[in-house]
Amino acid sequence: MVFVLKQNVSPEQINLFVEKIEAEGYSTFISTGTEHTVVCLIGNTAKIDLDFIVQTNEIVEYGKRVTEPYKAVNRTVHPEDTLVKVGNITLGEGFFQVISGPCSVESEEQIVQIAKAVKESGATLLRGGAFKPRTSPYAFQGLQETGIKFLLTAKQETGLPIVTEIMNQTQLPLFEDVDVIQIGARNMQNFDLLKEVGRSKKPVLLKRGLCNTIEEFLMSAEYIMSEGNSQIILCERGIRTYETMTRNTLDISAVPLLKQKSHLPVIIDPSHAAGIRSLVAPLSKAALAVGADGVMIETHYNPSKALSDGAQTLDLEQFASLMKDLKKRAAFEGKAGI
Amino acid sequence: MVFVLKQNVSPEQINLFVEKIEAEGYSTFISTGTEHTVVCLIGNTAKIDLDFIVQTNEIVEYGKRVTEPYKAVNRTVHPEDTLVKVGNITLGEGFFQVISGPCSVESEEQIVQIAKAVKESGATLLRGGAFKPRTSPYAFQGLQETGIKFLLTAKQETGLPIVTEIMNQTQLPLFEDVDVIQIGARNMQNFDLLKEVGRSKKPVLLKRGLCNTIEEFLMSAEYIMSEGNSQIILCERGIRTYETMTRNTLDISAVPLLKQKSHLPVIIDPSHAAGIRSLVAPLSKAALAVGADGVMIETHYNPSKALSDGAQTLDLEQFASLMKDLKKRAAFEGKAGI
Amino acid sequence: MVFVLKQNVSPEQINLFVEKIEAEGYSTFISTGTEHTVVCLIGNTAKIDLDFIVQTNEIVEYGKRVTEPYKAVNRTVHPEDTLVKVGNITLGEGFFQVISGPCSVESEEQIVQIAKAVKESGATLLRGGAFKPRTSPYAFQGLQETGIKFLLTAKQETGLPIVTEIMNQTQLPLFEDVDVIQIGARNMQNFDLLKEVGRSKKPVLLKRGLCNTIEEFLMSAEYIMSEGNSQIILCERGIRTYETMTRNTLDISAVPLLKQKSHLPVIIDPSHAAGIRSLVAPLSKAALAVGADGVMIETHYNPSKALSDGAQTLDLEQFASLMKDLKKRAAFEGKAGI
Amino acid sequence: MVFVLKQNVSPEQINLFVEKIEAEGYSTFISTGTEHTVVCLIGNTAKIDLDFIVQTNEIVEYGKRVTEPYKAVNRTVHPEDTLVKVGNITLGEGFFQVISGPCSVESEEQIVQIAKAVKESGATLLRGGAFKPRTSPYAFQGLQETGIKFLLTAKQETGLPIVTEIMNQTQLPLFEDVDVIQIGARNMQNFDLLKEVGRSKKPVLLKRGLCNTIEEFLMSAEYIMSEGNSQIILCERGIRTYETMTRNTLDISAVPLLKQKSHLPVIIDPSHAAGIRSLVAPLSKAALAVGADGVMIETHYNPSKALSDGAQTLDLEQFASLMKDLKKRAAFEGKAGI
Repeated sequence: MVFVLKQNVSPEQINLFVEKIEAEGYSTFISTGTEHTVVCLIGNTAKIDLDFIVQTNEIVEYGKRVTEPYKAVNRTVHPEDTLVKVGNITLGEGFFQVISGPCSVESEEQIVQIAKAVKESGATLLRGGAFKPRTSPYAFQGLQETGIKFLLTAKQETGLPIVTEIMNQTQLPLFEDVDVIQIGARNMQNFDLLKEVGRSKKPVLLKRGLCNTIEEFLMSAEYIMSEGNSQIILCERGIRTYETMTRNTLDISAVPLLKQKSHLPVIIDPSHAAGIRSLVAPLSKAALAVGADGVMIETHYNPSKALSDGAQTLDLEQFASLMKDLKKRAAFEGKAGI
Repeated sequence: MVFVLKQNVSPEQINLFVEKIEAEGYSTFISTGTEHTVVCLIGNTAKIDLDFIVQTNEIVEYGKRVTEPYKAVNRTVHPEDTLVKVGNITLGEGFFQVISGPCSVESEEQIVQIAKAVKESGATLLRGGAFKPRTSPYAFQGLQETGIKFLLTAKQETGLPIVTEIMNQTQLPLFEDVDVIQIGARNMQNFDLLKEVGRSKKPVLLKRGLCNTIEEFLMSAEYIMSEGNSQIILCERGIRTYETMTRNTLDISAVPLLKQKSHLPVIIDPSHAAGIRSLVAPLSKAALAVGADGVMIETHYNPSKALSDGAQTLDLEQFASLMKDLKKRAAFEGKAGI
Repeated sequence: MVFVLKQNVSPEQINLFVEKIEAEGYSTFISTGTEHTVVCLIGNTAKIDLDFIVQTNEIVEYGKRVTEPYKAVNRTVHPEDTLVKVGNITLGEGFFQVISGPCSVESEEQIVQIAKAVKESGATLLRGGAFKPRTSPYAFQGLQETGIKFLLTAKQETGLPIVTEIMNQTQLPLFEDVDVIQIGARNMQNFDLLKEVGRSKKPVLLKRGLCNTIEEFLMSAEYIMSEGNSQIILCERGIRTYETMTRNTLDISAVPLLKQKSHLPVIIDPSHAAGIRSLVAPLSKAALAVGADGVMIETHYNPSKALSDGAQTLDLEQFASLMKDLKKRAAFEGKAGI
Repeated sequence: MVFVLKQNVSPEQINLFVEKIEAEGYSTFISTGTEHTVVCLIGNTAKIDLDFIVQTNEIVEYGKRVTEPYKAVNRTVHPEDTLVKVGNITLGEGFFQVISGPCSVESEEQIVQIAKAVKESGATLLRGGAFKPRTSPYAFQGLQETGIKFLLTAKQETGLPIVTEIMNQTQLPLFEDVDVIQIGARNMQNFDLLKEVGRSKKPVLLKRGLCNTIEEFLMSAEYIMSEGNSQIILCERGIRTYETMTRNTLDISAVPLLKQKSHLPVIIDPSHAAGIRSLVAPLSKAALAVGADGVMIETHYNPSKALSDGAQTLDLEQFASLMKDLKKRAAFEGKAGI
């Protein structure tokens, strides 16, 4: 249930209103816009007399029931777009950012070289896996702590903020200097991890699970936001279907839907969605046109020798050429960023 | 198995070569490009000595095995893009066409009024269902023959070529004046119908089945083409997944894949893919950016009163506004058509 | 909308009631049970005042709205199980029948030999494909008319009723002596074909489409039954999912659901569902235990040389051994038939 | 790669052989059967000369490449069925066990009362959720530590071993007295958690992920077993498909496949698979017939007031009646247990 307050109500008035509601056993989430403050009630609001509250609290302009189970991430509650700040980079409506780098960090030399190249081409954030979730216990599991150290070196050398994946909440202390914590598809419903990163203040890049609905995706963002962290970037990365020619099926409709339903930035990972190098460029162009706020692209100076995901990785020249094209398109769409 | 012939071989030489191969029990499919003629062997070619043929037939430049089960529609066999001509409209690489109109033809007045409006906005073909495949036997099944008559009136009044769906091969005589015969998703593997339209010379718009793989889609096109008709337009219209927020899941990756694997035009139907009016515009933009050769959009002057599919139908104003945007984008992409 | 009539109303009274309703523009479907007659209204019943009808027609015990879109096949309308009679074989509740035979009829000798063997083992119906729907136009398309002729010879030699697939409605005259017409998965929503077999009086074995919901499956049965033919056997044969280790995923829950929702017999095709020989026996046992009324099993005297579907076909010895086991299980369940 | 050793080789000979292989950089997994010992090489074995090893090590009977990526859980490596012992209960081939109890532990009184009832009816293990993974952060998250305490009371009162779900590895100390640790569907690929329970010696009940393949399921079991714990029970609980009439689609074919591919016990959870009370009995019967080693069934004395999953929960009377039937069926199949 959501109450939109009148303009120019004082913080004191808001506090009084909120205290009254919380005394009834509800928690609240407050969203302060440029014109209106919105108070969102969380909990089972079935018993609340909405009209009574509107009539007996003069600071309330109007109220409405939010039937969707996600509250804090709901655009109804927070009509303005959330912009996520990472260093001097902004992710969200009006911007188009490109996160690039290798699937796995393999060595200091590797990540630094790739970081320099993608920065040169115009990427605005650096990705690289240090902890790698792998289907097989016998596959390369990533350089782990050392991988994060190498990423920080690459950040120092290029100025690019870094994005890297966490696998469980005990690793959080290692992510202190990481700019954006990634939650991978397999952990989208690792609720304890979501709560934990919700209690940190760091931007979180949340990937949609392989087989999760858009509503479940938003509910996982809700887990993070309900703990106080609204710096969330949603990432559509393909869903599992019966089609076998691509690794996954990019659900491009999810982008406009997520942007209609929520106020959070939405990006696309065309590399994992398709699993095929030759599809990365067309899907990136489609991402821009459909309204995504960015893409995340795997690059390597030698994809055929990459320790993981070589088949979907662009080499540095292919990436540079794609970036040239994307810059023209971002200009056409009137988007800042790259 | 495919043989690329040398330049400047005479028709007589080609005939001799083909006769020799067919005498071995294979059928052939011949594709004449601007520079090279390609001869494709159809049948189980496992026993053929490829090198022997290349060495003993001096008109052959080189040969290679085509492992994909689709032969005639395969780009390897026919490297140049097929352009489908419908009146003075061209569908295929380099063009972007917009097919528009109501889900169902409801009356002469309705289809003529909508046809005029979509033409005014820049649509280049008119769609409208006369025979409607409906899940329920109690639902409106279309105006049938009368619907086709009304479509032809609308064509006469506007000059727009018409696209309408056939449901079984006994209806073919009714489609004599129809410009493009549509095979719907549920009939994608109605093999007898495919063969029958393959024997006609009319352009065919073949929709991907709800749950068919890209390879099966190409094999259905192969059914049509193996009967001699290569005027085929492939249409991606969403596949069935576990996601329930959209009617289907648009498999946008299918577009670049189909264009890589085959030489046929590929369009997108964003209306059926999403089933939600507000997604039609973003998905149409994505279609253009990803490389599709057109879109097929449902329109109606009063979507809320449409006899079918109202929720996904644009009204005429929304369509006009989308067309303005798509024209700018087609210009940006360097595409003719709209 | 359904009206349950009082006991002991006369046929004349029923006719009067039905005429009155049909005069309002509704069609009706009448189901005569041992105790009650049920009259089902078909069409948009939203405007009907249910209470008014009950109060003003004294032969009506009570009425209720049937919200499911399927009416005639709905168990609410027809609470008693439909039994389908094929010669002296009964399909439906209380019976367990085994339909067996090769995927394709290959020769007279082949089908006769297999028919004799499966009869010897206890199969009660013979299957064999004459018209074969194949993904590829270059694959074996069946012996067609000749195949049906060979099936009829096998029937003559063994007395087993025959089940074979139709591919389009123009083939109906060829099926005059066939006992059960099979509609394949790809034709489950070939609505014109459904209507046509609905107008015949022959038993129809309707297979669930690869990607169709249970409700759509029932709606396709409704197409047949709404034309007057209630001799329908539903066949669950696996649905398409992301799993690749099996050919399809047998949706075993569909059996009890279909039997709860409708009054029609339900069988399982474990051969196509799994696509793996070693799963046919365990899935057949599960079919019996879950409440299916039969199974349809592919057999061949030499599966490795079968012209189609060899990997999922049992040899005659494996089939004989499975039949021995199934007979014990049918006895345990108290089912007649095999 | 797998080496089957000759009969009657001494432990010293085996050690020497293993040391030699490990010196080449491979890890090994040793499986001691009643007749043969099998040594399994783990790692990339592409470079190994298999014949050379067989010829130069006289204790080796024969070797073969195991192409499946799962090694330790592979039946080729360990041909005998693994039996998991929980107290005096045995799970695995030859037995059929029934795990029963409420979705969530709600109070001491509730879990004790249900435990007594299901024991009375013949259940052999008690289930109950203390930590509940819930899609919404606002839904009941379980009684947590207190829930485990209440489960232990119920165990004390009834003697039934208890099964309950862990959500992350920091909770392991709380599970010291729990008999079987359950890994839920959403955590099937929480690899760090899998490794951690692999290092414990407790039996693990591993549920298949909502959208995971059978191969991925086995690879997750491999994660546990590669850390030294082979006390693993695999649980098929339905996969996500497009069908909406059931909560999930029970993939019953997974049972015989998992038992062919691996040596681990396999059970079915019909409650979560179907999500519908009326399907629990038919699916449980099918489970027994298809060869499953048990079922896990949700029960409650008042399902309509259960704090979670009421719609799929049997009341105690329904459960008692199902158990009577399952006991007869287990006897028919020649299975011990219930």
